[in-house]
Amino acid sequence: MATIALVDANTIIETAFARAQQLALKPLTVAVLDAGGHLVALQRQDGSSNLRAGIAIGKAGGALALGVSSRKIGEMAIERPTFINALVPIAPSGIVPSAGGVIVVDGDGRTIGAVGVTGDIADNDELCALAGIAAAGLAAQG
Amino acid sequence: MATIALVDANTIIETAFARAQQLALKPLTVAVLDAGGHLVALQRQDGSSNLRAGIAIGKAGGALALGVSSRKIGEMAIERPTFINALVPIAPSGIVPSAGGVIVVDGDGRTIGAVGVTGDIADNDELCALAGIAAAGLAAQG
Amino acid sequence: MATIALVDANTIIETAFARAQQLALKPLTVAVLDAGGHLVALQRQDGSSNLRAGIAIGKAGGALALGVSSRKIGEMAIERPTFINALVPIAPSGIVPSAGGVIVVDGDGRTIGAVGVTGDIADNDELCALAGIAAAGLAAQG
Amino acid sequence: MATIALVDANTIIETAFARAQQLALKPLTVAVLDAGGHLVALQRQDGSSNLRAGIAIGKAGGALALGVSSRKIGEMAIERPTFINALVPIAPSGIVPSAGGVIVVDGDGRTIGAVGVTGDIADNDELCALAGIAAAGLAAQG
Repeated sequence: MATIALVDANTIIETAFARAQQLALKPLTVAVLDAGGHLVALQRQDGSSNLRAGIAIGKAGGALALGVSSRKIGEMAIERPTFINALVPIAPSGIVPSAGGVIVVDGDGRTIGAVGVTGDIADNDELCALAGIAAAGLAAQG
Repeated sequence: MATIALVDANTIIETAFARAQQLALKPLTVAVLDAGGHLVALQRQDGSSNLRAGIAIGKAGGALALGVSSRKIGEMAIERPTFINALVPIAPSGIVPSAGGVIVVDGDGRTIGAVGVTGDIADNDELCALAGIAAAGLAAQG
Repeated sequence: MATIALVDANTIIETAFARAQQLALKPLTVAVLDAGGHLVALQRQDGSSNLRAGIAIGKAGGALALGVSSRKIGEMAIERPTFINALVPIAPSGIVPSAGGVIVVDGDGRTIGAVGVTGDIADNDELCALAGIAAAGLAAQG
Repeated sequence: MATIALVDANTIIETAFARAQQLALKPLTVAVLDAGGHLVALQRQDGSSNLRAGIAIGKAGGALALGVSSRKIGEMAIERPTFINALVPIAPSGIVPSAGGVIVVDGDGRTIGAVGVTGDIADNDELCALAGIAAAGLAAQG
């Protein structure tokens, strides 16, 4: 498997929204990117603000750019803020240093894409991303 | 009505894909933007090339930027190529001068968003956009 | 196979340079990108001018962006110059509409990357790209 | 001598990779730029994430932009973060403030290019850059 299929991307998004509804979260935006960082699917729930698509893409695309989750990038940003800020303008979809961007791997541990969720607090965003990835029968990068 | 609801955006995309399947078109990418030009939903079918999301967004966003369909912008681009090319870098999502980007209006003729389709020849892309808009009970700008 | 391995990228570049030497071509620059459009390897021969890396990347990345060779994009650019110019600023690595950018596919016809060559006339650039791809046991998109 | 020859750039990269293998480092990306900041050669090892080419180029290009190593720029970034972040968008290849970007000088101390290495921790990246420069019979800026 080389990349996330659209059918799996849609499952990820629907499941993330269902999990958000269970948890009574705020409106979410969920983006699914292929391994190259290109958008496969995105949905922005009614009431999400203007930049939410960009934030979701920047969480997922930033994770792919650096090879770690956006949660980890958020930790790096606390230790080395200038380093992370310096990478933002050279990353095609930016880098959003906050949990909710998760790399998706296949059975052999190879990167096949990433999911980015934004709208609620970052921990909840990430919960929804993980729920979606699991529902599609895929795995988050360990 | 101020903007396209996510449920309608999803109907637009699903219908566009169904129409494409009937016509045996190449893999499509469909983007739905709100009236402000911000992404509401996007799906890229398996086998679509890397820039297809950007092209779909650029058809829809360009239509909203100039207030006419991307088909009309394509005609303007033949008459005044330098004018259109000069606008591209100042439009947040670019302007793609080729049919397939259609403005969506409410019952009073007010703009509520736009649809962009890319992947097959431009006339077919537009057919799928129009089919999607109709299926959602909305209207294309006349 | 999901992407071009570095060892194959190096074979492509070395073979392209060897072919250029046989044909007594001008100094070349050769870029090899993965399927996502990210650089795997690049070499610029002594005497190549400042923008050659960007041109090689733009030929290969443009091919991946649109799903066709940069030769085909060059033909599209003659028919619809404004359309192609409008895509340039929304493509992460630009789009260079001139032969020498060739998509590389695996045995199942799936895109695994692209090669971009620049420095001599475009037909010769493409010859060198094709020679490199063949030497690596890979295939150019038909 | 005005610039790094391709043959020397390749020696630098191969030696950096060999040193990394001895030290069992993570997959590296190595970029070699000429004195004008333009790419001469780059190799990204299998498993390096999407932005690694950009980071390697940004370490080397940033060093050339400011005339000091990217290690020194990293120190400046701690003392004056706003200053460094303000320079990033006006530097053609960005500025990555982290060790691993080293200016290369000729026998008279004149800048002839720079090497950028990324993939492991910054100290290890720099070790590999220095090993490569030495193997090519060149010198790092003191």
